[in-house]
Amino acid sequence: MRPSGGKSGRPAARSVHGVSEVSASWWWWSQAPLQLKNLPVNSFSLEFLTELIINLEKLENDKTFRGIIITSDCPKAFSAGVDLREICGKNPAHYTEYWKVLQDLWLRLYLSNLVLISAINGPCAAGGCLIPLTSDYRILADNPKCLIGLNETRLGISAPFWFKDPLVNIIGHRASEHALQLGLLFPPAEALQVGIVDKVVPKDQVQSTALSVMTQWLAIPDHARQLTKNMIRKPTADLLVKHRDTDIQNFVSFISRDSIQKSLQMYLAKLKQNKD
Amino acid sequence: MRPSGGKSGRPAARSVHGVSEVSASWWWWSQAPLQLKNLPVNSFSLEFLTELIINLEKLENDKTFRGIIITSDCPKAFSAGVDLREICGKNPAHYTEYWKVLQDLWLRLYLSNLVLISAINGPCAAGGCLIPLTSDYRILADNPKCLIGLNETRLGISAPFWFKDPLVNIIGHRASEHALQLGLLFPPAEALQVGIVDKVVPKDQVQSTALSVMTQWLAIPDHARQLTKNMIRKPTADLLVKHRDTDIQNFVSFISRDSIQKSLQMYLAKLKQNKD
Amino acid sequence: MRPSGGKSGRPAARSVHGVSEVSASWWWWSQAPLQLKNLPVNSFSLEFLTELIINLEKLENDKTFRGIIITSDCPKAFSAGVDLREICGKNPAHYTEYWKVLQDLWLRLYLSNLVLISAINGPCAAGGCLIPLTSDYRILADNPKCLIGLNETRLGISAPFWFKDPLVNIIGHRASEHALQLGLLFPPAEALQVGIVDKVVPKDQVQSTALSVMTQWLAIPDHARQLTKNMIRKPTADLLVKHRDTDIQNFVSFISRDSIQKSLQMYLAKLKQNKD
Repeated sequence: MRPSGGKSGRPAARSVHGVSEVSASWWWWSQAPLQLKNLPVNSFSLEFLTELIINLEKLENDKTFRGIIITSDCPKAFSAGVDLREICGKNPAHYTEYWKVLQDLWLRLYLSNLVLISAINGPCAAGGCLIPLTSDYRILADNPKCLIGLNETRLGISAPFWFKDPLVNIIGHRASEHALQLGLLFPPAEALQVGIVDKVVPKDQVQSTALSVMTQWLAIPDHARQLTKNMIRKPTADLLVKHRDTDIQNFVSFISRDSIQKSLQMYLAKLKQNKD
Repeated sequence: MRPSGGKSGRPAARSVHGVSEVSASWWWWSQAPLQLKNLPVNSFSLEFLTELIINLEKLENDKTFRGIIITSDCPKAFSAGVDLREICGKNPAHYTEYWKVLQDLWLRLYLSNLVLISAINGPCAAGGCLIPLTSDYRILADNPKCLIGLNETRLGISAPFWFKDPLVNIIGHRASEHALQLGLLFPPAEALQVGIVDKVVPKDQVQSTALSVMTQWLAIPDHARQLTKNMIRKPTADLLVKHRDTDIQNFVSFISRDSIQKSLQMYLAKLKQNKD
Repeated sequence: MRPSGGKSGRPAARSVHGVSEVSASWWWWSQAPLQLKNLPVNSFSLEFLTELIINLEKLENDKTFRGIIITSDCPKAFSAGVDLREICGKNPAHYTEYWKVLQDLWLRLYLSNLVLISAINGPCAAGGCLIPLTSDYRILADNPKCLIGLNETRLGISAPFWFKDPLVNIIGHRASEHALQLGLLFPPAEALQVGIVDKVVPKDQVQSTALSVMTQWLAIPDHARQLTKNMIRKPTADLLVKHRDTDIQNFVSFISRDSIQKSLQMYLAKLKQNKD
């Protein structure tokens, strides 16, 4: 991917893994659409994560851009989160690098100076919520398949604290405790009610709604908005910065267990079988 | 009380102070009904608290059990909280022990690995909220007598911070500030609206609803749910662990005051008179 | 202003800058109406702030009073907040003093032992929210002109953290993040829905509602209520106490910038022109 269009005042859509098509009404001189495309379900492979971070960095540094609308260019999902192949059958050094990059993405997004709007046009579970949870605004397609939530416990694992913290910030302590313990996936109406998304609209209006919301946000002077965002979010981000090494160690030691690796292998074999 | 029924896969109801009757539909292989029975209103006498803690400890250690539904077997109340006779006319050593045991109960409940569901079938004020506030889920009987809340200020005292903290976690800061300062007791519909309970059902459906909610919670693998619960609750529990000695000292010095003792004596005399 | 009426059991209305008229139904033996009058829009000049603090101190120390209803005696606004003339064209020593006094007012209000009720009978933006945000209860007049909110970002600045903190306490983290970044001003119905005020009533009922709410609050024994209020609010107040010097330095260095001073001068000139 390369940044483009900035100088002409009309940015092309940024696409990660593959070319994206963007209709004319999609752009705004100061916002960049960022379309995730890592078929079939935007799993976070190490390569995809790295590319995403590089793109975000470029957009942050290119003063042409003031906001990003992040959406999926995969028909099946907004994002499936962690790519299990990255955390199965590899060595501790690989797991360490992978988790660190995932934390890097979180930090870059959560403290981004850009306005980040998630245009969630597909299912979005567990790690797939990373982008929405760190965005400034979340719009969900009104489709029963578009479930959103941190369902880690249903998979026998626990979401990391840096997923819990923004969830608590967004929907409150009690609703988070309930949703996280039960691994709830919210269909659109419930997602709106609990507050994990800010707006639910028909699927074909997700992009236009995102653009219209972006217009509101870009009406605010950047510097004042950025100072304010940082003031509110820094204490939460500081917790990850402070505890990230311990968090990596915990993750690597957990994922390296024989029992966990066996479960992951069986699960991956099953997924492969279903595909064939 | 002794743990029983575990091996047979069908636990008898645990009853504290007195035998409890449990209908057949009440049990579930992996959950234990815990019926509080310290007539007339489940006041927390030192003996009752101690027995409750021992029972909880046994249930925690008995791997047969994964969850507890806590309810009252006293017709008049879910729990009246602190037994005033324990904090009136005794010596500082007694007050110290009493408060420490109350903190112990709180800590055991708040960080319990078991799923705790409060089936609140009677009024539940001040200290009587200890069990509901530390549970994972709260169901309240839809009866105008079933008031719930921390009404300490109306009695001229202040709830301890470890009652305030879970209340803030459950209903938020603003609602807590309002409810605690005014000592509000919520009737069922308001209790549901403010969020201090999760569900309100007719009194004769409290138990069946609790069982059905428990089924949802037990569908989640224990280990993942426990890790998640601990991650969310530990920071709140750590505050009590860190400040418990100071909290005991504050309580003992407050309760030992002549003016407070005099008020308590008058109040107890009045209660006794009403009874006679 | 001098405290008066206390001994007679019927306090006169306290008025800052100018005589206030108070109808007979306005008083209550133990509450003092405090009417803000610094025409035209109750801007916080240094003199007005100082007088306000002195009055609050007197009321706190006069045991006749248990609560204050704060309202505006200016037809155009509840309060316009910071008086720009205090932070424009003066020297750093003056800015330092001004900001310190503003913090003093915040601290005095937020931890006041008195029951504070804001009877918001006019628009109330940015710094004008200081009194409502630190009150125990907020009543807003149901008039489309009565907008309330922290709109600092729209003016190109960021609200200080000690405005953000009580806002988060009142309306929660997510709503605060949204409102602060976008500098939202809420009309009455939305203000009620988001929770930044507790009640919306027709303008001519603001005072009577405030009195009736005050009656509820004064039904609670002072000592217990004060302990409870302090327990809930102290952690938030401690943050300002701990960081107030850094906060003053940040403010003074920001406001002393040439670019900021130039903007303020232009803005003030424009305001003056509109007036003429």
